[in-house]
Amino acid sequence: MSFATHDCPECGTAVKAYRNPVPTVDIIIEVAGGIVLIRRKNEPRGWALPGGFVDYGERLEDAASREAMEETSIRIDNLRLLGCYSDPGRDKRLHTISTVFAATGEGTPKEGDDAEGIAVFALDKIPDKLCFDHADIVRDYLTKKRSGLL
Amino acid sequence: MSFATHDCPECGTAVKAYRNPVPTVDIIIEVAGGIVLIRRKNEPRGWALPGGFVDYGERLEDAASREAMEETSIRIDNLRLLGCYSDPGRDKRLHTISTVFAATGEGTPKEGDDAEGIAVFALDKIPDKLCFDHADIVRDYLTKKRSGLL
Repeated sequence: MSFATHDCPECGTAVKAYRNPVPTVDIIIEVAGGIVLIRRKNEPRGWALPGGFVDYGERLEDAASREAMEETSIRIDNLRLLGCYSDPGRDKRLHTISTVFAATGEGTPKEGDDAEGIAVFALDKIPDKLCFDHADIVRDYLTKKRSGLL
Repeated sequence: MSFATHDCPECGTAVKAYRNPVPTVDIIIEVAGGIVLIRRKNEPRGWALPGGFVDYGERLEDAASREAMEETSIRIDNLRLLGCYSDPGRDKRLHTISTVFAATGEGTPKEGDDAEGIAVFALDKIPDKLCFDHADIVRDYLTKKRSGLL
């Protein structure tokens, strides 16, 4: 069992609460010419897939659509489950479990507040180095795509 | 944003903490003759797939193997991702996000502490009514299985 502590605002006592891994989504947005990557403004810096935390009460697919809109201004459609990535070391900050979708997008990507850049990369021009385990995710995506499984 | 409250053990103040959906796993264990279901001792009572909460620091696949062992005494192998189930109403108690695996098992199922029964059901004899959204999950499993996708 793992616990997080929260400081009591009245007396300062560290209050223990049971801690679960934190669900996230990442999205491979397929647009004309390739897929969309964002350049993160915060640590870890670099190119990454758009994505983020799933809200309490929110379905995974809705979280993916919301994050895609917030981080790329693109409305996505045709969501397909690529896989789930849960290695506790995948994010140095906390244990996240990411459900990754491939999806179809239309329109011109525009970065959100957390990014300092955004671009469409052709499938044979994707940077080797991506944040978190996103290079592994993209490799799995390309493998499935080439096998006609997505 | 959603918050949970934890009572401070020193002064009783309700301490707010950000709340995320809670990751779980469920497992369709394929054994000779069919798949394994357990009969839940606690609410909601009835037949259900084996499964449970993912621990902080634990990979999904490891959680599935651990829960299968705890709830059925079966060692599983050959895990395949069936899907992710995240409807906030799928569990009345709290918002869980379940990653579901199909897996191969060997041996005789034996129920764990949380069950009052366990059985192997042939694929054409699975009860129509299962706990949570497990009837939907089993239907998706049968569809994929028949299409050769699992």
